[in-house]
Amino acid sequence: MLLFAGCGNDSMSNSSSATSKGFQTTGRNVDGEYQGVIEDGHYLTSKSRGVVLVKDSENILNLQSFERGLLNISKQEFSPKKYIFQEGQVLNKSTVYKWLGRKTKKNTLGLNPKDNGSKDPKKRNPMYVQAISEQDYMQKDDNDKLVLSGMTIGIAMNRKDYYQKEEYGATYISDISKEKMLQEGRIAAAKVLARLRQMKDVPKNIPIVIAMFEQAPQDSLVGGTIYAYTVSKKGAELGSWTETDYQSCVFPATDGKKVPNDNDEESFLNFKNKVQNFFPNLAGVTAQAYYEGKTLQGLNINITTQFYSQTEVISFTQYITRAAKQYLPANVPLNIKVRGSDGNVQSFVSHQQRGDDYYTHVFGSY
Amino acid sequence: MLLFAGCGNDSMSNSSSATSKGFQTTGRNVDGEYQGVIEDGHYLTSKSRGVVLVKDSENILNLQSFERGLLNISKQEFSPKKYIFQEGQVLNKSTVYKWLGRKTKKNTLGLNPKDNGSKDPKKRNPMYVQAISEQDYMQKDDNDKLVLSGMTIGIAMNRKDYYQKEEYGATYISDISKEKMLQEGRIAAAKVLARLRQMKDVPKNIPIVIAMFEQAPQDSLVGGTIYAYTVSKKGAELGSWTETDYQSCVFPATDGKKVPNDNDEESFLNFKNKVQNFFPNLAGVTAQAYYEGKTLQGLNINITTQFYSQTEVISFTQYITRAAKQYLPANVPLNIKVRGSDGNVQSFVSHQQRGDDYYTHVFGSY
Repeated sequence: MLLFAGCGNDSMSNSSSATSKGFQTTGRNVDGEYQGVIEDGHYLTSKSRGVVLVKDSENILNLQSFERGLLNISKQEFSPKKYIFQEGQVLNKSTVYKWLGRKTKKNTLGLNPKDNGSKDPKKRNPMYVQAISEQDYMQKDDNDKLVLSGMTIGIAMNRKDYYQKEEYGATYISDISKEKMLQEGRIAAAKVLARLRQMKDVPKNIPIVIAMFEQAPQDSLVGGTIYAYTVSKKGAELGSWTETDYQSCVFPATDGKKVPNDNDEESFLNFKNKVQNFFPNLAGVTAQAYYEGKTLQGLNINITTQFYSQTEVISFTQYITRAAKQYLPANVPLNIKVRGSDGNVQSFVSHQQRGDDYYTHVFGSY
Repeated sequence: MLLFAGCGNDSMSNSSSATSKGFQTTGRNVDGEYQGVIEDGHYLTSKSRGVVLVKDSENILNLQSFERGLLNISKQEFSPKKYIFQEGQVLNKSTVYKWLGRKTKKNTLGLNPKDNGSKDPKKRNPMYVQAISEQDYMQKDDNDKLVLSGMTIGIAMNRKDYYQKEEYGATYISDISKEKMLQEGRIAAAKVLARLRQMKDVPKNIPIVIAMFEQAPQDSLVGGTIYAYTVSKKGAELGSWTETDYQSCVFPATDGKKVPNDNDEESFLNFKNKVQNFFPNLAGVTAQAYYEGKTLQGLNINITTQFYSQTEVISFTQYITRAAKQYLPANVPLNIKVRGSDGNVQSFVSHQQRGDDYYTHVFGSY
């Protein structure tokens, strides 16, 4: 039984048994984020928790971008003010493993094509579908019960399929064209939707968002992006696809890679130039830039340098804050993470939008 | 020549040669902190940079607590609004190494006693003075030149002296009583002050703060604390010592260790209890608590857990923010750092004083 208590209630006390045995939420302290569901004091984790992480071929950045992308798309359909986020409870591990596998006599549900026997990168049948993620969006019904009221399903597609010809052997790559990825993605989406609509745990006629994600290569310093999504209002009708134009890239751009807007990279390079020579020892300065079309949407800057004292950390942080104000765009979310040579975060600067203060924090120790 | 330009000036442009060849400051973006000195676009690092770090016997937490402690004491004497911070430029590496050494025929300046030949922990002469740190406090003179106007010298004293009987051999410990440490510290302070007053780089009659620091043991999870300081107004007069009553401790307290105030630890344990069972896998929750007397001054909480998705990080961060509001003191600086099992920081919650918002940040990736 799904008992929902504590929504909008800041108390965590267990004085009422309905609360302690029922559901609570995490609270919403992070602006614009969803509240999550807590059951008996424990977070209700995904039924397919960990499926993606155990794939050793996975780039962790893809996972982060995938989930963050799904949340962003979901917010358009399921407002965080009206819906509560719940980790996927419909698709369990065994189902997801089956779906992500190849189609065989034993595994008729595999979304990837059967093995044609070839080990040649260009002749073999590659794995197109890399990951599936489910997000549940909940609302209270008239009896204060928490009910599944919307779903977002993410399907992560490969442009490169990494494989071994023999166990523990060298890694080979089958390239997948953009057209082929789009085509296979649409086929997989249709199958997934049809299967979901058959499941008894999925209430009839709830909206289901299907979002398609293009995986970044394993050696990429940014994750992939959502390239299209659709909202199925009811039944097995996919609805019409909305194509998105998101792109993540790295500054400074690597050889031959074109960035969406040269001006942004130039701003970054001015910042980098100012910052990297602050100490006698060089600081490493890189960035992830996120674009919609040619318009910058956000910038994550990573700085690594060797510090010899706490006062150096403080001075450096003040300096980069000033440099950020002068050189970096003020109208998009900016996050700067400063790490020491041991990899530990030392300080952090954040600015969300024009007019906001620059938030600065130096991590200390007593 | 010390040319000072750019104080209170947010521009970093090098349009004027006086600026580009002279001094700038880091800016002051971190509330209540000092601006630092930049020379030709580079930070003016300490002349004894790295001396402490190369000592392999050093606990890095001591270093952080030592420098942070010196800054806090300095702020009482040299207001950040009136003084600019400069890393120590008077004592160079070679001088500091000599002072930290034993007194020998060759090294007459050694502050530590001569080797009496014994290797027995109780009979040998231990090393009392472990580290010396110099902080310079600068002001502009009438010609806009930056001049040394105050100094803080920190002297870090051992309660335990770690040593080897043979190179690369086992580590032995000579314990030093509190009384002995205080006595040796006063002797060292008097010598250091007298030497500084003789140095041509130290302007006559500037105030010199001498702050005494008690090192925490190597295996401590908190650093040491300043136990006394004095302000020498001029000449070799030490002035009168002010004893401080700072103490850092760890929550949960380890066996037998008494914490200054049980209520604070109980609050922490309630928080920990609520947080550590959030996921099916346990979260590690520890804290550093900083006290003056029996009064809590600040709390640094470290949480480590394994996350399986970005949505788990977001939900967890919301939950701990709510738990912090409910269980932890609201009237002292509180910083909570959340790390994944790989050690990378995932999110961060901060609250500075009663009435402030709780600042929450989830580190993301594009």
